Amino acid sequence: MPNIEQAQAWYREADPVHDFSHVLRVCQMAERIAEAEGADLEIVRAASLLHDVEGSSPEVGETRTDHHEKSAAFARQVLLKEGWQEERILAVEHCIRAHRYRSTEQPQSLEAKILFDADKLDVLGAIGAARTVAYAVLAGEPIFSEPSAKFLESGEKEFREAHSSYHEYLFKLVKVKDRLYTTEGKRLAAARHQFLIEFYDQLAAEVEGKR
Amino acid sequence: MPNIEQAQAWYREADPVHDFSHVLRVCQMAERIAEAEGADLEIVRAASLLHDVEGSSPEVGETRTDHHEKSAAFARQVLLKEGWQEERILAVEHCIRAHRYRSTEQPQSLEAKILFDADKLDVLGAIGAARTVAYAVLAGEPIFSEPSAKFLESGEKEFREAHSSYHEYLFKLVKVKDRLYTTEGKRLAAARHQFLIEFYDQLAAEVEGKR
Repeated sequence: MPNIEQAQAWYREADPVHDFSHVLRVCQMAERIAEAEGADLEIVRAASLLHDVEGSSPEVGETRTDHHEKSAAFARQVLLKEGWQEERILAVEHCIRAHRYRSTEQPQSLEAKILFDADKLDVLGAIGAARTVAYAVLAGEPIFSEPSAKFLESGEKEFREAHSSYHEYLFKLVKVKDRLYTTEGKRLAAARHQFLIEFYDQLAAEVEGKR
Repeated sequence: MPNIEQAQAWYREADPVHDFSHVLRVCQMAERIAEAEGADLEIVRAASLLHDVEGSSPEVGETRTDHHEKSAAFARQVLLKEGWQEERILAVEHCIRAHRYRSTEQPQSLEAKILFDADKLDVLGAIGAARTVAYAVLAGEPIFSEPSAKFLESGEKEFREAHSSYHEYLFKLVKVKDRLYTTEGKRLAAARHQFLIEFYDQLAAEVEGKR
């Protein structure tokens, strides 16, 4: 069973959005959901600690597209060395491959649904707001810019319209809670979703000089 | 009187913490406070638009220490060309030199107090939280790390203790509202202070897995 010290060594180079503290938060929430849902804790824990292992370099955006495939392959090597059974390695690989929002492989097992939910909780709430701002800064995008009428209607930007963290919130983050699978995950997401809305409402009001 | 288009050209190279959107927000809030307090709007507006003009390069931290002096000198050149009277140029220069939190020159005039307050409002509220996170990311510091008992007691970090955005909140941001001068500035700061506390309380609770 991989432990936290071992896992930390796999995440040496990191950006502030996908660093080891993200992995620890996901692992913590995944264990909490796993206990509430009666899932296999060992599979949830191994999958959580290994889920971003090949995505923890400073690249952001498009360059991370296959990090779930590479992380699953890395997990297989680690667990083979530890003598895990093939069936349980496959279960961990499935969790890791299916954890992404836009993954083609959907979570089938309870454990995969739990990792998906725990990973999504980290884009909601105050931590979600902070990580979205951090992502924008790393990508050279503004914290806030006024979205166009076109963007508000269709999610498509005008020519030269900046993609601010506020755009990311409107287009993606606000819908995340409806994608979650588990009862405990949904319960935790509801409060974080509410806080995220309060944060961006407050931000927009302050920028417009209303508060 | 410098206008916004003119001012924008002075702020070409910027980090996301001290970019032109910061200048616009400060200008907007300064005008709002100036109206409530019956201050000289022309001086407040010129000082706001010019207050960070020599600090808008990608450097952060210590390298910005004399940006208020340089910005005041730049303002003098602009206003001389526009034919402003010496007395009014001095008034603008004073506003700019006294706007910093740790400035040796304290704000004496109503207009200087207003620029100080408007600039500080931008480190409070949701925008303050977002800018503090952005600053941490630019400086390679974490969004959150657990403060040591020593830091909580004295504001001094343990050997190798990271300075996260949460440390910045605990050590500096939480005290900002008590530094403000004007009645309207204090009123606006109270609500933003409250939101900032809610943000960092929520962040800490989420990171610890409590929410």
